[in-house]
Amino acid sequence: MRSIVRRWIISVASPWLLLAMATAQAAESLSSWNEGPAKAAILEFVGKVTKQGSPDFVPPPERIATFDNDGTLWAEQPMYFQLLFTLDRIKALAPRHPEWVGKEPFASLLKGDVNAALAGGDKALLELVMATHADMTTEAFEAIVKDWIATARHPKTKKLYSEMVYQPMLELLAYLRGNGFKTFIVSGGGIEFMRPWAEKVYGVPPEQVIGSSIKTKYALRNGKPALVRLPEVNFIDDKEGKPVGINQHIGRRPIAAFGNSDGDLQMLQWTTAGEGARFALYVHHTDGEREWAYDRNSKVGRLDKGLDEARAKGWTVVDMKQDWKVIFPAETR
Amino acid sequence: MRSIVRRWIISVASPWLLLAMATAQAAESLSSWNEGPAKAAILEFVGKVTKQGSPDFVPPPERIATFDNDGTLWAEQPMYFQLLFTLDRIKALAPRHPEWVGKEPFASLLKGDVNAALAGGDKALLELVMATHADMTTEAFEAIVKDWIATARHPKTKKLYSEMVYQPMLELLAYLRGNGFKTFIVSGGGIEFMRPWAEKVYGVPPEQVIGSSIKTKYALRNGKPALVRLPEVNFIDDKEGKPVGINQHIGRRPIAAFGNSDGDLQMLQWTTAGEGARFALYVHHTDGEREWAYDRNSKVGRLDKGLDEARAKGWTVVDMKQDWKVIFPAETR
Repeated sequence: MRSIVRRWIISVASPWLLLAMATAQAAESLSSWNEGPAKAAILEFVGKVTKQGSPDFVPPPERIATFDNDGTLWAEQPMYFQLLFTLDRIKALAPRHPEWVGKEPFASLLKGDVNAALAGGDKALLELVMATHADMTTEAFEAIVKDWIATARHPKTKKLYSEMVYQPMLELLAYLRGNGFKTFIVSGGGIEFMRPWAEKVYGVPPEQVIGSSIKTKYALRNGKPALVRLPEVNFIDDKEGKPVGINQHIGRRPIAAFGNSDGDLQMLQWTTAGEGARFALYVHHTDGEREWAYDRNSKVGRLDKGLDEARAKGWTVVDMKQDWKVIFPAETR
Repeated sequence: MRSIVRRWIISVASPWLLLAMATAQAAESLSSWNEGPAKAAILEFVGKVTKQGSPDFVPPPERIATFDNDGTLWAEQPMYFQLLFTLDRIKALAPRHPEWVGKEPFASLLKGDVNAALAGGDKALLELVMATHADMTTEAFEAIVKDWIATARHPKTKKLYSEMVYQPMLELLAYLRGNGFKTFIVSGGGIEFMRPWAEKVYGVPPEQVIGSSIKTKYALRNGKPALVRLPEVNFIDDKEGKPVGINQHIGRRPIAAFGNSDGDLQMLQWTTAGEGARFALYVHHTDGEREWAYDRNSKVGRLDKGLDEARAKGWTVVDMKQDWKVIFPAETR
């Protein structure tokens, strides 16, 4: 009898014990964060919105947290990784496009001169993007992205791009989820560029990834229904577009938002302008040794107006050099 | 000692017992469905995709189910309820628009002649929609919808519109969720028209509601950030638009889809064209006494090509008169 009871206890209790352990772990899981004002602000905010009976309590369905991707969850230097993907794809596709040798921006790129290729500004960029992102099914594009993320390496660090995510932010995502938050990515990057790997790398499922997009069209391909990617911009999920994208996809205002650049400013404004307890955090790239140091004058991930507004409004600013024990997951091994 | 063990058993076990009961309940929860091929097909599909080790097993994150709204989850006669909302709003706003008395389609509408007002086709409809849905903040529109859904009554049944949802479909939504599915609404109706009440009525949170939309713009209103609704169509989530909307919002192909009209056909095609076990169901409005009977020749919710394709492909077709014990929740009380 006792052994039956014990077996039953173990069978019913063990999932709960695991859950209890997971929760306890969650509270202690910001282990790559040094003690300091940034970590303290996170713990204080999560503590008060999750405490039953607290005036700041927020019911779980409303615990929406939105994260920028480039420069907030993974690195973005010397240029956005999706641009590096684009350049890799141009090279891979060049044999099928002999005409590119005589046509900008492709010609410069194939000669290895990225700056000359991008000198044409948004128009040149759009041409490169459409040549590599459109005129194929969503499934074909997904397969290309999955292959790239599994094999391509960063020009400077030689790491896989999925290894250049920020360990403290992975912990923060898990910590928030452990406290009943639903975590979303809200990025200027391509929605279909992030979805194929965001679940594995960040624990964020495709339906919680918001980003820029091109149009798609429902069509029959070889007699089977398919969605074909068109060379036409659908939505730019940056700056003023971030609150718009959040509203389109989530339909609720986040209570916490995380970014690193002026492109995230409107998301942080929109988030903090809601009623009740709100949290806004900027990751400030201050560590030129372990990562990159840049802010007001950077072409990529410029943080200028946002830094001023963060200081004026008392938002949390992470000093990567001071606040983070490690930057990338490999450093924890 | 024994009482401590017992208390501990109770404390750790009771949530599990509740869960076990909930699951058992879920299996038995299609109580408004008569025994028959439709109910049997649902149970068989859910059984095989949730059975560990089954060749048809689908991991929970991929258990995506999408539901049309008008005619699938709630009634849609004598016209789409969002159109009835629009007409109610025109009447409410008329005192502020004296010019409408001499201007179509408003003039006919205010005289009570809906058919004459709608004779202008899509252009007239769009004018009515924009006059009632745009040029305000998202928060103002949400408040208007919430007020309407709480008070307005259907012209024929005199019920609140939220009471004209289908009890068997509420049970089906809950049954799927109880089996690890994530349920989404994918409707031609307005996304912001559904979100304010979908969570309460259907248990579907705003981030799982997909619909047609107008554009919004981030702007300061009285010094506060706001999203302003613009009189410009953003996306039509109907027919070919449904797979496009699903891909935009979910980024995964559903494994089960539920509709009632030709407007849902592409969603059902897209869903069933995926690999592995798939499920498609049409609600066929066959009950002129308890609800409405219509299909191939109806202006609202026409089911013609879809009915042929369902039969050709062996999709499940619900015969409302035969398959449903009750139609609306009030009948269960």
